[in-house]
This record gives sequence, C-alpha cells and structure tokens, in this order.
Amino acid sequence: MSATIAEILQANRSGRSTPARTVAACLEAIERHADPSIFTALVGPEALGEQLAALEGRDPAGLPLYGVPFAVKDNIDVAGLPTSCACPDFAYVATRDATAVARLKRAGAIVIGKTNLDQFATGLNGTRSPYGTPRNAVRADLVPGGSSSGSGVAVAAGLVPFALGTDTAGSGRIPAGLNNIVGVKPSLGLVSTAGLVPACRTLDCISVFALTVADAMAALKAMAGPDEADPFSRPLPFGTPGACPPALRIAVPRPEDRVFLGDRQAEAAFTQAVARMAALGARIVEVAMEPFYETARLLYEGPWVAERYAAVGPFLESKPDSFNEVVRAIIEEGRRRTAVEAFRAHYRRVELAARARAALEGCDALMVPTMPTVYTVEEMLADPVRLNSNLGIYTNFVNLLDMCGIAVPSGLRPDGAPVGVTLLAGAGRDAHLAAIAAAFHASTELAMGATGRPLPALPAAMPRVAAGHHEIALFGAHLSGLPLNGELLEAGGMFLRQARTNADYKLYALPEGRVRRPGLLRVEPGGGAPVECEIWALPAEAFARFVDAIPAPLGIATIQLEDGGRVKGFALEAVAAKGARDITGFGGWRGFLAEEQRQREAAGISAAE
Amino acid sequence: MSATIAEILQANRSGRSTPARTVAACLEAIERHADPSIFTALVGPEALGEQLAALEGRDPAGLPLYGVPFAVKDNIDVAGLPTSCACPDFAYVATRDATAVARLKRAGAIVIGKTNLDQFATGLNGTRSPYGTPRNAVRADLVPGGSSSGSGVAVAAGLVPFALGTDTAGSGRIPAGLNNIVGVKPSLGLVSTAGLVPACRTLDCISVFALTVADAMAALKAMAGPDEADPFSRPLPFGTPGACPPALRIAVPRPEDRVFLGDRQAEAAFTQAVARMAALGARIVEVAMEPFYETARLLYEGPWVAERYAAVGPFLESKPDSFNEVVRAIIEEGRRRTAVEAFRAHYRRVELAARARAALEGCDALMVPTMPTVYTVEEMLADPVRLNSNLGIYTNFVNLLDMCGIAVPSGLRPDGAPVGVTLLAGAGRDAHLAAIAAAFHASTELAMGATGRPLPALPAAMPRVAAGHHEIALFGAHLSGLPLNGELLEAGGMFLRQARTNADYKLYALPEGRVRRPGLLRVEPGGGAPVECEIWALPAEAFARFVDAIPAPLGIATIQLEDGGRVKGFALEAVAAKGARDITGFGGWRGFLAEEQRQREAAGISAAE
Repeated sequence: MSATIAEILQANRSGRSTPARTVAACLEAIERHADPSIFTALVGPEALGEQLAALEGRDPAGLPLYGVPFAVKDNIDVAGLPTSCACPDFAYVATRDATAVARLKRAGAIVIGKTNLDQFATGLNGTRSPYGTPRNAVRADLVPGGSSSGSGVAVAAGLVPFALGTDTAGSGRIPAGLNNIVGVKPSLGLVSTAGLVPACRTLDCISVFALTVADAMAALKAMAGPDEADPFSRPLPFGTPGACPPALRIAVPRPEDRVFLGDRQAEAAFTQAVARMAALGARIVEVAMEPFYETARLLYEGPWVAERYAAVGPFLESKPDSFNEVVRAIIEEGRRRTAVEAFRAHYRRVELAARARAALEGCDALMVPTMPTVYTVEEMLADPVRLNSNLGIYTNFVNLLDMCGIAVPSGLRPDGAPVGVTLLAGAGRDAHLAAIAAAFHASTELAMGATGRPLPALPAAMPRVAAGHHEIALFGAHLSGLPLNGELLEAGGMFLRQARTNADYKLYALPEGRVRRPGLLRVEPGGGAPVECEIWALPAEAFARFVDAIPAPLGIATIQLEDGGRVKGFALEAVAAKGARDITGFGGWRGFLAEEQRQREAAGISAAE
Repeated sequence: MSATIAEILQANRSGRSTPARTVAACLEAIERHADPSIFTALVGPEALGEQLAALEGRDPAGLPLYGVPFAVKDNIDVAGLPTSCACPDFAYVATRDATAVARLKRAGAIVIGKTNLDQFATGLNGTRSPYGTPRNAVRADLVPGGSSSGSGVAVAAGLVPFALGTDTAGSGRIPAGLNNIVGVKPSLGLVSTAGLVPACRTLDCISVFALTVADAMAALKAMAGPDEADPFSRPLPFGTPGACPPALRIAVPRPEDRVFLGDRQAEAAFTQAVARMAALGARIVEVAMEPFYETARLLYEGPWVAERYAAVGPFLESKPDSFNEVVRAIIEEGRRRTAVEAFRAHYRRVELAARARAALEGCDALMVPTMPTVYTVEEMLADPVRLNSNLGIYTNFVNLLDMCGIAVPSGLRPDGAPVGVTLLAGAGRDAHLAAIAAAFHASTELAMGATGRPLPALPAAMPRVAAGHHEIALFGAHLSGLPLNGELLEAGGMFLRQARTNADYKLYALPEGRVRRPGLLRVEPGGGAPVECEIWALPAEAFARFVDAIPAPLGIATIQLEDGGRVKGFALEAVAAKGARDITGFGGWRGFLAEEQRQREAAGISAAE
C-alpha cells in the first residue's frame, strides 16, 4: 500500500487500478504488517462488497475520494460494526454511520475497519487498551501515542492512506508526532461529532491522520460543514489551502517557556524546526506561554473531567470492573466537581483565551513542539499518569482556547525517534494553517510515516489565494511601481502573479483625474486582444474598502484570463469608453506608458536640438 | 425634565440650555417626583461640578451625549459612589467607573445617581430591596418590575432621559414593559461588563432604558465595543439602525403556546400587537415555543444559579443575615449543583439553541409579550417566588440562547396598566431589531413613559452606514423577499432604505441561470429612467465575499441615485446587454415580476375558461 490519497485517486480514475483492487491491496498490507493491536474490527467481505457496489456506475471524477480506503477510530460509529471505545463490555453494534463517516463514504471513500484507542479516549499514549498497544510504526519500543493509537499507526505503516481519530486534549496530534505523519485537528464544530461517543463533549472533535497535509485536508473537506444532528457543529469558513503566504509571522514559545523535560534531542529538534521556519521566510515572534500553560492545567485539574463522567458515568457505576484502572480513576474524579467550580473555571478559561488571542495578534500561527519528549512503552507502564500528562503539555490547551491545529513531522532524532511540530491558530483558520504546514513539511524532505517513500513535491500548479483573502486583477495605476501601488501594500496586499486577459477586452485611456489611469472593457468574444494585468491578493476587509473606494467610471467585474482562469478585477463602464482613446494595441498600461515615454524623449531631443 | 436625549442635545448644543442647567433641571425633577425608593445615591455637587468642568471647552458637536444626564443601576460601579447591590452590608465605594459608565462620560453624558434594584439583581419585580419598592410610574399600585426597578421608573417618570440597567433573565426588559418605556438588552458581549457585580457572569449584560428606541441606541452606541478589561466582551457588528426593512417576517408564538395566566387584557393586547405588526407590512410566522420555554426552565431549575453563588457565595457565608430572605434562599441553592449537572444542562442548552435558530430561520425577529400579565405590589409580596417566575416566562430564555432584545411599549390596557412586546433576534442583530422596534413604537402613538408627552416622529434623515460596513445597492434577486435575499441576511446584512437611480440607467432581464435576475447598465446621461433598488449594508468581510462571488456578467459599479447620492451596486457588463430584454419601463425588477405574475394569472384564467 503506502500510497497517498492523491496516488490512489489517480490510479483508480485512470483505470490503472480499481476501488476493489485498492481495497484488496489495503487488506493485504494489513495482514502483512501483522500487528493485532491496530484494528479492533475489520469490515467483512460482504459489507466491503456493498461499499464497492455503491461506487459502480458513479463518475470517478465526481467523487473526491473515489475508492480511497480509510480506518475509523473505535469510538466513532460505523453501521454494522461494534463501537467499543476499547472497552469490550461497553461495545454496541452501531445501526448507522457517524455523520463524518457517512460523508466520507458519500465522497467515494471505503471504510476498512475500526482502530484501537486508549479506553474511552482517555489518554495520550496508546497503552490503555485491553486490545494491546499498537506498535509504534517508526521505532517499535516507543509508545504509539494516543488516544488515537491505532489510526496513527495504521497510516504511518502505510496500511490506509488516511484514518479518523478524535482529539479532545491532543489525541489527534500526539500519535502523528510519534509516528512521523500529519495530524489535522480541525476547529471545533467544523466536523460533526454525531455518532461519536463523547469524551468531553464541549471539547471533542474528529481528526484526520494522513501521510501529507494535502491528503488530510482532502479528507477533512469531505467531512466539513454543519450537521443538524450535531448542535455543536457550526458554519465555519473552509478555505482552499493555497501557497504558503509570504511575510509569515510565526509565534513560538520564548526560550525560557520551552519544556523538554531534560530531553536534549527534543530541544535541539525544536530549535532546528524554528530555524527551518525562519528559512522559509517567516518572521519568528517569541511569546510567553503562561496563558496557554495555565489553560492546559485547567483541563487536567479543573472540572472538565466531569464531562467524561457525564458521558459514561451510569455505565461506570454499573460495571466498574470493565474499566482500565487508570481510566476509571480519572473518570470517577468527575463526580466530585461542583457547578460552582465549573463556572469559575469557565470564567478563567475565557480570561485566558482573551490573553492568548492578544499574545498571538498579528501572527499567522503559533508553532510548538507536538510533544516535549518521547517515552518507551516500558517507561509509560511504569508511571502511567505522570508521563501521560507530560505528553500533553503542548496539546491540552488547544481545544479549551478554541484553536485549530496541524501536527506535522519536523525530523528524525539521532536516536531514531520521530519529532514534530504543531501549528495552531484560532478557529476557522484550518486552511491557512494547512498552507503553512504543507510548505514546512515539504521542506523537511522526510519520508512519509514509516513507509520509506519520499514526500511528494508540493503541487506545482499555481495555488489559490489563502482563506480570508480575495484576488483582484489590476490594469492601471495600481500596478507594481505605479502611483497607486502603495495603497495595496498599505492594505496588506500581496502580489500573486502576472497574467493576461483573453481576447475579449479593450483597454481605454481615461480622461485625466487625480492620476492617469486606463479602463478595461469586455467586448464581443474575440473582439479585443489580451491585456496585461497583475493579480494581487487582499485581506477581506481591505478588499471591501478597496472596492468601496473605486471611483466611477471604474468598477469590478469578472475578468476572463488567457489561461482560462477567472478573477475579479477593475472594469470600465461602457458609457465612459465613448470618446476615450483605445490603447488595446499597446498590450497593457505599461506598454502604453513606455511608448509615451519614448515619444516624449524623442520630442525632448528634437526640442533641444 | 421629561426630555429625550435628542431634545437635550439640541438644547445644549444650540445654547438654549447648558449641561449645567440640564443637570439642575434633572435634580429638580427628582426632588419634585419625591419617591425615596428610586435612587440609592445621588452624585454630590462637587462630583457633578467635576463632570461639568470636564465638558468645558469641548466641542458640543463632537460629543454624542453632550450634557445628557443619566442614572446607573446600583450594581454597576461609579467612581466615588458606593456600589450596594441593594445590600447595605455588601456596599463598597467604587474607585473607578465601570467601562460602560466611563465611555458614556467620555461621550459627554453626566452621571446623576445610582438606582435601586432587586437585591443582587435577583428578581424581576422590584420589591426585593431594603431601600423600598420604587413606585410604578404609570400605575402606582403595580410592581415597578425588576431587577432594574429604579432605572426603569426614573426614565418613565421623566427624571433622566436614559438609565443603565442590567439583564440576566429579563431585568432590562420587565421594568420597561411595566413602565411604558423602551428597554434595550444588547447582545451579550457588546457592552463591557467590567465594573458590574456579576449575577450570572456568563449571562449578564448592561442594558439601557430610554423613552425612545433612538435614544436607547444612541446610549448603547457610546458604550458598545470590545474592552480589554472584560474577556467576555467580543467584537460584534454594531450597525446604525436604518428604516424598518420592507418584507419583514416576524415570528410570534403560535396561539396554543401563548401564556397569559388567565389575563384576558394581556391576551387581547398581544393580539392587537400582532395585528399592528402585520399592518406595518410584516408577514407573521407562528412558531412553536417549546425550545424557548424549555430553555427558560433550564435557567430557573438548572445549574446557572451556581453562578450567583460563585459571585457572592463567600459574602453570603459570612453574613447570611444581610440578605433578603427570598434572595438568600435562591443563591444558596447554587451550592448544591454538581459539575456534571452543569455540563449536561449546557449540552441541552446547545441543542435547544440549534432548534430555536432553526425555528426562526428567515425571520427578522421573534416578537413576544414582554410579560404575560401584571401584578400589584400587594399580590407580589403575598407570593414572591411564584409570581416573580411568572413574569419571566418570555424573558428567561433570551440570554441562554445568545439573543438580543428590545422591549417596546405596545399599548395601555383598559385597566390602565402598560403593556409591551419584546423583539428578539440572534446576537449581533441589535441595530436590525432597533429599526423594527422604532417603527412599531412610532405606530402606537403612545405617550412616552408616564410623561404624557407624545413620541417624536421617526427621524426623517436617513442614517449613514456604520463604520466597518459597506453599502450595496441591489436591483434583482437579492431584494427583500426574493430568492437570494437570504444570502444577505446570513452575511449579517441590514436593510437601510429603498432608493431609485437617476435617469442614466437601463434594466435588462438576463437569460436565466440558477435564478432569474436582471442587470443594470449605465447609459448616456438621461438616456434611461430611474430604476428602483434597495440599499443594504454588509460587514466588510461579508461584502468582500459577496463581491468576490458575483457571477459574470454582473459586477460592481458606482450607482448614481435620484437624490444625488452615490453607492456601490450591482451593474451589468455592456456586452451582455445585447439581445437581452430591456425592462426599464417597469421601473424595477419587482415591477417586472408583478407584471409577469399578472399575465400568468390572466393566462391561467383564460386557459381555465
């Protein structure tokens, strides 16, 4: 297997493979890998056949995940399979798919099986399951990370191209960090949690593990969007991740706030990651981590554990012996908290969130180590509560602060352990993070997971502009270096590329106002000629101000480009073209200005003579 | 006194009065009214002098509340005065103004004194104070309403043009309803609560009582906006209320869900209010109230009472005898709630909020009676808990559902009791509600409060759009009630006014796409005819997204209006007008659709013949 979603799609769509052969290869890979602790259940031949049958006759190009196999953490419902939460006495057979699973199937993806986890998603290490501990795919003595242990390992080992995890306090990021893969923890409410057994219902989200950022975002996109069945789902923007924006500002913990628990290799790796980010052109901003760390402590010491009790309390009271001991002790603690404590902790959380937002103002992301150090299975079993908490130092605060995050590999340590960073930003910035994470990941030139295969190059095709920005085509005085260009720069504008319109346009020199400017008019198809332009991106508010300030007779229209693209850009009202000089023949405003200059110089020379 | 903010501003600015004389008139009115239970403290001559001195040399036109006196509920800090919460043993002298008070002062307003309340803002009736019960300004035997009893009565009696209240469960609306005045309960987080003694900190907001909607919104505007000192404050849009939008859709409780507790006069008054709203052109949509009522029960029976304990628990434990008995019993209940209960109630609240949103989808507002009935002071004292709860039936759910609301008088009952309605909508729609409330209030032709003075006419001048918003002129499918209008409402759009272009435009019916739409083209001066449009305001980001999504051949141009104004609006590329049907003669898209409909009906009739 070891293939990415992009590769599988290409094979399935081109006829080089089929969904059935892809699924067969996936099952073979699972058998060959021979780790009985990764999956808690596999989909049977009959149910697989049904999924494949549902794809027959469908247009492969119309299904964004056509014939792509995936695995599902075993606290998320898949119709016909038991949902165990790694607690056999709790297991029930789900009668319908979780919304996220149903949407992936609708996009053409095929569920292969359910994956192991720390019981009731209570843990970050992967050893808290009666089904055993999945082997870390990169270094077998290390914990695989949890709670989404099976999903993380399944992707890293190349058994499935992507897998669903969940993430309440880091469960969608720690296994990514410990297995050299990508873990996307979406904004809360972006993906429906209908059909998920809650851990902390106000903080839970469904996450994605994949070999590349692009793959994870493709899966996320298929799942994202409000769902009537989940009142916690909300309409958040889901932009298309574009190129890594220029002029990045990346916040990192200031040196005295970095925690590595004495692990020099982890410390060195993070220093290198910061240098790598700077080498990508980012300005590094060191921030105090106190509001983040205090929030993390709130999660572990505060009242949110009562949510775990709210979720499984009655079952725990009736069958206490069915629980992993560590897990039971944690959940029982939830009984003791009072409502007064819950509200006071909430107040503090809101205060800390305001401080955290202020600390990150103007930054594109906060970059932290995904985990402060690594532990072996043996070490973890010897001190299961304290070492587990240590793993979450950089993850626990994220959902309480309503942030989204992407864990991405940053290197391999001298001791062979994987090491990664997590990029974090406020809710709704998922696509923006993805653009940065993809560029960072590509620059590491790491292999993907434990597959030994190199990362694919970033897509060469011109990426679309980042979420929250709008493209605008400029034809006149706003071009680079011309009198009004400063307006764009002051507004945070960003040059993207040069382009030309198709041949349906004419350019006119307008009567002079405050500055000299041309106007572009669409005419009959083929009735004009290509006109040169620059395409810039503006942040939404600046774009709005800019459009609002355009003086008549100029306005905004959809400009059709020579390469078939379309972009909003400056356009002239036709009535103003009457009597104006047609300068289409110069190919653009710069061509016209250059010709004028030439003539002026010629005239100057002759006048001087 | 009895003057509105608008009148006071005009007098102070024109020189007909001065801030000092206005304040003197205000103090005289307070003395003449002779109700010792309205104010808990008045600002002394020295502090008044300081406030007046601060206005000297300032440009009156630059201060939106220049020399306007106001009163402050005595759970909000005013520097130099005690904050008592109507509990003398609790009182402390505030060392600084609450942010809201400071901003009002900065806008030129002058604090006159602190007003009585139900102790610790725990109550809706106004009898729970050791300082006595303020006399209802309209009918002296009735309760004044609470908890903001003193502020409501002070405005209704014409002692101050506006006063601050607070509103957790209805305290900013019930006194308005019982005193024939306007009560604006802003969106949570729109006004900073820094300097407010909390009741339920997640649900508290500072509210405004005034004689007119315009006055209340003027005061609100001066206070609104994020505040670093209050982490619960948030950046919500604050539009300028425009004219009442056309094609209103107003939700009301379906008849079987209306609760009047046997009060026929209240029932008849609400029926009349609904008819009045319909007469204003609103389409009335009857909705089931179950999600709202269940939310209201959550507030009274659920864990939020623990917030009251979180706020004053330590004081209550140390001085239980300092409390009003009813208030103490309520707050003590907060000790008994568990965190598990708190989270479960929160889950239910989120579920109910989703259902409430769905029930109101596409509606401009939900209109409910402000209170289901009225009670005399005597009745209330005989059954203080049950009757108090009854008053909150239509108010308790509002903050839990993150809605804003405006209580506005709707009439006087045959028995002389005031009666009112409350308009409610999702957070951030304050200005939209204000536009509707102002039109409704004006149509009642009631006197203001107990002043006997008639309501002023609605301002004739059209307000300009607020900062951070952009105007857009619409000509087709985005008009109110037409297929794409929902896009504007979802984007936070706000109807401003109807308008017509000058005679330089032609309107064309475009070939059909996803929806039928016209296109507007500017032609030679005078070569077209005026075309009807609606002007809306959109927040900047929404405006940017909106412009970016306009499909060719439509775009944006500067539209010249009949009244000489200019506004950005939808415009057609000239090349697309060729061959399209010129429908300029219909005066606009609605005129064209109406004519089509007429012809269809005629054809239907003739076909049936």
